[in-house]
Amino acid sequence: MLLLTNIAQLATLRGSESSRRGSELNDIGLITDAAVLSTGGRIVVAGKQREILRHPWLKKHKRKIKEIDCSNKTVLPGFVDSHTHLIFATPRLIDFENRIAGATYQEIAEAGGGIRSSVAGVRSTSEAKLADGALKALNHMLACGTTTVEAKSGYGLSFEAEMKSLRAIRRAAKQWPGAVVPTLLGAHVVPAEYKTNRDEYVRLVCEKMMPEAAKKKLAQFVDVFCETGAFSVEECQDVFCAAGKYGLKPRAHIGQFTACALDSLLKFSPASLDHLDHVFERDLPRLAQSQTVATLVPGANYFLGHARYPDARGLIDAGVAVALATDFNPGTSPTPNMQFILSLACTQMKLTPAEAISAATINGAHALLLGDRKGSIEPGKDADMAVFDVKDYREIAYWFGENLCKMTIANGNLNS
Amino acid sequence: MLLLTNIAQLATLRGSESSRRGSELNDIGLITDAAVLSTGGRIVVAGKQREILRHPWLKKHKRKIKEIDCSNKTVLPGFVDSHTHLIFATPRLIDFENRIAGATYQEIAEAGGGIRSSVAGVRSTSEAKLADGALKALNHMLACGTTTVEAKSGYGLSFEAEMKSLRAIRRAAKQWPGAVVPTLLGAHVVPAEYKTNRDEYVRLVCEKMMPEAAKKKLAQFVDVFCETGAFSVEECQDVFCAAGKYGLKPRAHIGQFTACALDSLLKFSPASLDHLDHVFERDLPRLAQSQTVATLVPGANYFLGHARYPDARGLIDAGVAVALATDFNPGTSPTPNMQFILSLACTQMKLTPAEAISAATINGAHALLLGDRKGSIEPGKDADMAVFDVKDYREIAYWFGENLCKMTIANGNLNS
Repeated sequence: MLLLTNIAQLATLRGSESSRRGSELNDIGLITDAAVLSTGGRIVVAGKQREILRHPWLKKHKRKIKEIDCSNKTVLPGFVDSHTHLIFATPRLIDFENRIAGATYQEIAEAGGGIRSSVAGVRSTSEAKLADGALKALNHMLACGTTTVEAKSGYGLSFEAEMKSLRAIRRAAKQWPGAVVPTLLGAHVVPAEYKTNRDEYVRLVCEKMMPEAAKKKLAQFVDVFCETGAFSVEECQDVFCAAGKYGLKPRAHIGQFTACALDSLLKFSPASLDHLDHVFERDLPRLAQSQTVATLVPGANYFLGHARYPDARGLIDAGVAVALATDFNPGTSPTPNMQFILSLACTQMKLTPAEAISAATINGAHALLLGDRKGSIEPGKDADMAVFDVKDYREIAYWFGENLCKMTIANGNLNS
Repeated sequence: MLLLTNIAQLATLRGSESSRRGSELNDIGLITDAAVLSTGGRIVVAGKQREILRHPWLKKHKRKIKEIDCSNKTVLPGFVDSHTHLIFATPRLIDFENRIAGATYQEIAEAGGGIRSSVAGVRSTSEAKLADGALKALNHMLACGTTTVEAKSGYGLSFEAEMKSLRAIRRAAKQWPGAVVPTLLGAHVVPAEYKTNRDEYVRLVCEKMMPEAAKKKLAQFVDVFCETGAFSVEECQDVFCAAGKYGLKPRAHIGQFTACALDSLLKFSPASLDHLDHVFERDLPRLAQSQTVATLVPGANYFLGHARYPDARGLIDAGVAVALATDFNPGTSPTPNMQFILSLACTQMKLTPAEAISAATINGAHALLLGDRKGSIEPGKDADMAVFDVKDYREIAYWFGENLCKMTIANGNLNS
């Protein structure tokens, strides 16, 4: 039984049965002089300290309570990082230097770098070693306040290497106190050996990878990279269609470099469409009416040196539910820290700190269809919290380039 | 006596009698499988481990040696952060939110925010409390690998408050293991009470603040903000001229928002000209021929959401000595972490990781006229080192938004 006391500011994000939109994003359910009681990995009650201290459980279970003094601290729900590529063998330092020397994303890909350069590494690395790397990244994330992480395969691009990647995710997840949501991203790019036979690769993904991932419960989601050089909208529809057959839920990378029509994909009610640097304006009303979350990953824009960021304000103003994620990956966004994503959201995309926090917690949870369990600090929800060494929640987005998280509680487990 | 062993990569930055320019910036004196021996706060020897282990001192002083295993780690000289505003009372969260809502730097200043809003805080805060804040920031910096910090006054803007600020810097410095270089920035902006009588304020800075700071040894440098809305080039010349009288060395903020001719300031041989977002091309050859370092502070561009960054490549190609600094301050660059400045330098200004490291170490030292003591790991120099949890120096600039420094050694003192 955990009791967090003397919290300067507690952002509960309470009352979020569905994803937050428009002005709701600014309501983070802020309570000053607050306390939170949890037991068995679940929140019992959160509110003003003077009220919490009168809770009957406190008297009853006096000896079992571990109190944590959060004086001068701010407490948020643990971040939900709803878009990461955890499974890779090595950082892509050569691409990094080539990009500095002026090479574009496409040029790097054509020179054998990019996504495909991570494929050789994953194929030749053991499941145990991939799991070690994933666990190291998960622990960095946890230290930075993240308690739920979506993790994609997608650098294997063969039946064996994709399944190995998903097993590595499972192996790492078992050793980590937070929640990991696995996603099959077999359809990341077409691997070199299928270059002249892409239909067969799509069939491999749909008819071999998906049923196996579903059968072995290795994935909850299926993702696809819809982009020039990756997969067409038609191929994405095939992938989504097959996902439905096997009970896997769809999500997609879309609009990172070029816009494409969203309507044919929205028909499949994907939990999330991610990137959305480029969107046709005519698609906004339909996206806003849907339950689909738009997951923005500005870490990639930052790392690629783009002056342009996703039009978060336009999406929010149109009524679209917006989430934020790291896009942690070795090629375009090597950061594990959601605090820095808040900084990018506020300084580059002009979200308020409150909007950014909503997007990084409750809306991230909805982007993973976990809104009933994750993303807010409310009775009955999982005890996922992050304690920051600041007195004002806005400081979490204000100070940048460092880690202000002093303690994380994931499913009731304390990590400091 | 400290012995760092098994270092995967050691960047010595050796052989830097003067500031590095052009292609020299890429030569960071990299040694693999390295070791470093230091004693009494000074480097004894640094090199290949198999050679260092044969050093006669090792046998002689066997029992006095504390060995630190740096397996799989990279060691750099401690960062030299040559431009910071350490002394302020509170973060500027209101300006932060106003900027998100669309206000410009000038609009924020005119609405009572900006530099002037920090003045009331500093004037009403005690020296001890200002020193506490500065020490907290210095300790964040140390934890991120910085061992030398330049610290400016400049939010006092009265004789009493500027002297109090400098005394607070001295008080914090005494409690910190690294080196602090104090700078009088009385000429930051003209305070409200001198609005109609700016000449008198410049006289106050030159004829009262400077002699007192010099007499009490409270400052080594004098800085001035040369910009529309701050001080004119003529006023800067007056400030530099007076600085010379009192044996204080000149440096300036210049070209942050508008370009102005550098020649009249270069005559005073300033140790550094800082910001330089806007420079007249005709000034580059003269700047390159001078000993003056161009200190770039991209944290401010990032935090202000500017798509444009200083033209670091243009400066380097012209032969200008370039340094990097955080510009740590509450209004435009609240980051203590030089690692993130390396990330900005590489991703936004297209410096190579090696160039960025040279700029953040040896050239920062030269920007503070400390090139003979700081900024490289060479026999006789101060034992200032930072140990990073990466195998390749390029990773320090590649991973972003977190702190990869595991240990700092400042003047031979270990901090982990």
